[in-house]
Amino acid sequence: MERAITISREFGSGGRELGVKLAESLGIPFYDKELISMAAEESDMPEDAFLHYDENMPFIKDPLDRHFYSPFSSIYQVPMSDQIFLAQSRVIRKLADQGPCVIVGRCADMVLENSVNLFIYARMKDRIRRMNSLETGVDPVKMESRIREVDRKRKDYYQYYTGNEWGKAQNYHLSLESGLVGVDGCLKAVLAYLESVQ
Amino acid sequence: MERAITISREFGSGGRELGVKLAESLGIPFYDKELISMAAEESDMPEDAFLHYDENMPFIKDPLDRHFYSPFSSIYQVPMSDQIFLAQSRVIRKLADQGPCVIVGRCADMVLENSVNLFIYARMKDRIRRMNSLETGVDPVKMESRIREVDRKRKDYYQYYTGNEWGKAQNYHLSLESGLVGVDGCLKAVLAYLESVQ
Repeated sequence: MERAITISREFGSGGRELGVKLAESLGIPFYDKELISMAAEESDMPEDAFLHYDENMPFIKDPLDRHFYSPFSSIYQVPMSDQIFLAQSRVIRKLADQGPCVIVGRCADMVLENSVNLFIYARMKDRIRRMNSLETGVDPVKMESRIREVDRKRKDYYQYYTGNEWGKAQNYHLSLESGLVGVDGCLKAVLAYLESVQ
Repeated sequence: MERAITISREFGSGGRELGVKLAESLGIPFYDKELISMAAEESDMPEDAFLHYDENMPFIKDPLDRHFYSPFSSIYQVPMSDQIFLAQSRVIRKLADQGPCVIVGRCADMVLENSVNLFIYARMKDRIRRMNSLETGVDPVKMESRIREVDRKRKDYYQYYTGNEWGKAQNYHLSLESGLVGVDGCLKAVLAYLESVQ
């Protein structure tokens, strides 16, 4: 299977963990947060800006942010958030050209033309339980609102840059609920599906 | 795995074929069109009416149909289409109570509380190719509009009776695109996923 694999995921559903295990199983590279510093390096823009705009569009909440143009770009009409999306997209395409890999988030499913695209999600109560077991520093009561906030940002970001509906099955090749079978159960199903990809 | 498995499907995506093969692999019963005569028998309403309203709500196109009450029911205020949905739902629940089985369509994913729910879909061009290879009597040029018509009916029916969005990944446990890996590739992925269900 020579294609890149992209993973879109609800926050707390285990999408990143699935990606790590999938890349290990297939012996191919894995990219998630790594894309931030790679894109910063590629574009010569500060990594701080990438962290700020990573899968996030602050201007949806505050229209003034739309006017925060980059002082680092000669095309100063392009908002910082769009420049960052474009820089990440260039890096994603470059990585996929180098060979099969697993890429999490950042609309990689729509940036790439020939990828196999996965979507991972779970019921809210399962995601709260999972996150509370992973992050001991966060108030368990506040976890649900944190999950909803991150999901909303990912959804807005995806819909703004792709024009497609986040979480609509037809946008992906395989969508898996992780609460019923766990991340390892999802991994087995993904590997079985990929076996039949030409 | 003691649960019923439901299959929602885009027309022409191979959902029925997947269901047949899945039931064979697991050695459990398969129900699709069979539900029509079973529900007719259970409710003492004519099978013709079930055929007419099966996964279809004509009254959306013609509001007068909403007033086509059943002469066979004592609760004559309930429209025929709703009576038929209710009769099918009773049969679906009865079958699932008898043991694991595969049920295609008819909102079974929402009728049952403890089922594993699959959604099967494919790109239009793959569905046209598939249907043209199966149904030699249909004008290939008209196939696309036929597919869109059947999908629209299934979508309206699902949304009317469940209040949920047809094809939204989060409504199902596993959603599979069948064009990339074929029905047999989907079958392998489903069996791998089911292995991890408690």
